[in-house]
Amino acid sequence: MAQWFEEPRIYVENVPHGEPAYEISADDVVTALSDVCRPEALTCRYADDRDLEAFRRADIFVASKLDRALITTEGENLRLIQCTSAGVEKYAPFDWLKPSVLLTNASGVHAQKAGEFGLMATLMLQNHVPAMVTRQRRHVWSRQLRAPASGTRVMVFGVGALGGAIAGRLKANGFHVTGVRRSGEPHDAVDYMITPDAFITELTRTDILILTCPLTEETRSLVSFREFAAMPPGAGLLNLSRGQVVDHSALVPALKRGQLSGAILDVFDIEPLPVDSELWDAPNLMVFPHVSADSPDGYNLRCLAILAENLERARSGKQLRNVVNPELGY
Amino acid sequence: MAQWFEEPRIYVENVPHGEPAYEISADDVVTALSDVCRPEALTCRYADDRDLEAFRRADIFVASKLDRALITTEGENLRLIQCTSAGVEKYAPFDWLKPSVLLTNASGVHAQKAGEFGLMATLMLQNHVPAMVTRQRRHVWSRQLRAPASGTRVMVFGVGALGGAIAGRLKANGFHVTGVRRSGEPHDAVDYMITPDAFITELTRTDILILTCPLTEETRSLVSFREFAAMPPGAGLLNLSRGQVVDHSALVPALKRGQLSGAILDVFDIEPLPVDSELWDAPNLMVFPHVSADSPDGYNLRCLAILAENLERARSGKQLRNVVNPELGY
Repeated sequence: MAQWFEEPRIYVENVPHGEPAYEISADDVVTALSDVCRPEALTCRYADDRDLEAFRRADIFVASKLDRALITTEGENLRLIQCTSAGVEKYAPFDWLKPSVLLTNASGVHAQKAGEFGLMATLMLQNHVPAMVTRQRRHVWSRQLRAPASGTRVMVFGVGALGGAIAGRLKANGFHVTGVRRSGEPHDAVDYMITPDAFITELTRTDILILTCPLTEETRSLVSFREFAAMPPGAGLLNLSRGQVVDHSALVPALKRGQLSGAILDVFDIEPLPVDSELWDAPNLMVFPHVSADSPDGYNLRCLAILAENLERARSGKQLRNVVNPELGY
Repeated sequence: MAQWFEEPRIYVENVPHGEPAYEISADDVVTALSDVCRPEALTCRYADDRDLEAFRRADIFVASKLDRALITTEGENLRLIQCTSAGVEKYAPFDWLKPSVLLTNASGVHAQKAGEFGLMATLMLQNHVPAMVTRQRRHVWSRQLRAPASGTRVMVFGVGALGGAIAGRLKANGFHVTGVRRSGEPHDAVDYMITPDAFITELTRTDILILTCPLTEETRSLVSFREFAAMPPGAGLLNLSRGQVVDHSALVPALKRGQLSGAILDVFDIEPLPVDSELWDAPNLMVFPHVSADSPDGYNLRCLAILAENLERARSGKQLRNVVNPELGY
């Protein structure tokens, strides 16, 4: 009898009325896996039109949103869950995940787009663009020259797939890059790597702080009053990780006082950002609607490429990639 | 007797209450020329406190603003005028310039800063940042994913020092770069070079148009109704040259209709932009206060380095660099 990864039964669940870039069709799956295997069964359904019989038989579940109740009650045959989101913090703690099931995320599919967006936003902070936007609202012309990137110290908190791609772009364009990573292991794109315990000390010489870490119990409210106070006056903040990594009740006063020169946020506690949030009108703050890392083309195929590679690895007896560590939460 | 370039009499004129980055001190001159010559006389004065006797004896005049009346009536010994601005269009026509006097400009001193700013602004247009800024004013969250740079066609009109530096950054970061240059000569950073007569045809496949040309009779109102109509719907515009190169009465309707997705302007017909200009509030338009090309540090020294190189060239009997062609106007 074939192993589960040789002739898998695959169940794909799409979000009804979701962003088209994230929708996965049966054709996408067949195309992505063509070199690796031929699925024994393949079902693509919307979450509001499930085929429970097919789900119960499935070895592999592919979805952007994971319904934990569905998985625990009906996913009796599951061996692998491929989540098409890079961050899976909303499913923590992972006590619902049976030890026999591997959960993989989409970390890495955002690298090219995120690298470009991170470079753009860092140059914007370097050039005080958020302050210019605020002044434009008031028709104020204020000519303040800004130095080029060389000599500007940027810190990337979280040097994974996303942070590594951004660090690479920044270094190539002249910034000095400090990285923060649990292991402290060096990285080609990072001039100086530290571990999280040195974070607050290193902040004192950081001109621009970039957040690209997963949201975990350790990174929740990582950046608050104490951290803003530690940064040099006029520093900038870019958050591309998750909204809760920054304490927004500390951010707004820091911007109003001019302690920070500007902030660019692409992630928020609640998305879409509520229409009455004070962040919309905070001075020197730019709101981006969670667009830093996703491209309109090829997102789903890049996610399925992770699945294809993992089926190949399973066949060769290798460790899979992108496996979420339930203890760490990413 | 020593030649004028061996022991020159130098007169520097600064603008009273001007931007400190542009002010040139006697020390700056001595430092910049130390390897090349020792000035026989060196006078640094503000324009409202002139030393006319020293000016009359001067061989070399260094200034950001050129007082044509002063030069024609009192500059009887002048051999070289080093203007510390890259654009000298406001002194055209150049009938006031005696054939025995060379006028040199500061083209090239902006390259590093302008390269970074051009890359930033192009990425902003690529990511529709001007539209996001307009939506943020209205508290509107609208998630529209944008492709990465690869596959985006950018046209750089004017591949001189500034345009060449920007083209280099764009190409290195994945954009496809078309260049427009009078000579049509190839350039390392440009994928496809055209001459100005092919401009309108090439516009039909240009996603982002970047203006980095001098203002001359040929480039005045270069971009107007016809040019916006030729561009693909949703194209972007970046103007880093001079305000008059763009017809703003055509730009605003093109933005309002959504024919263009956004515009970033760093230069205006009148600067500072008047407080009642309609450009401040035009949708999807970002106003920058002429900051794209200047750094706060080292601007004056980079200008003086051109002078130093030219004195060296004069001594070796070589052609000087940065000499303005009075016919072309740059």
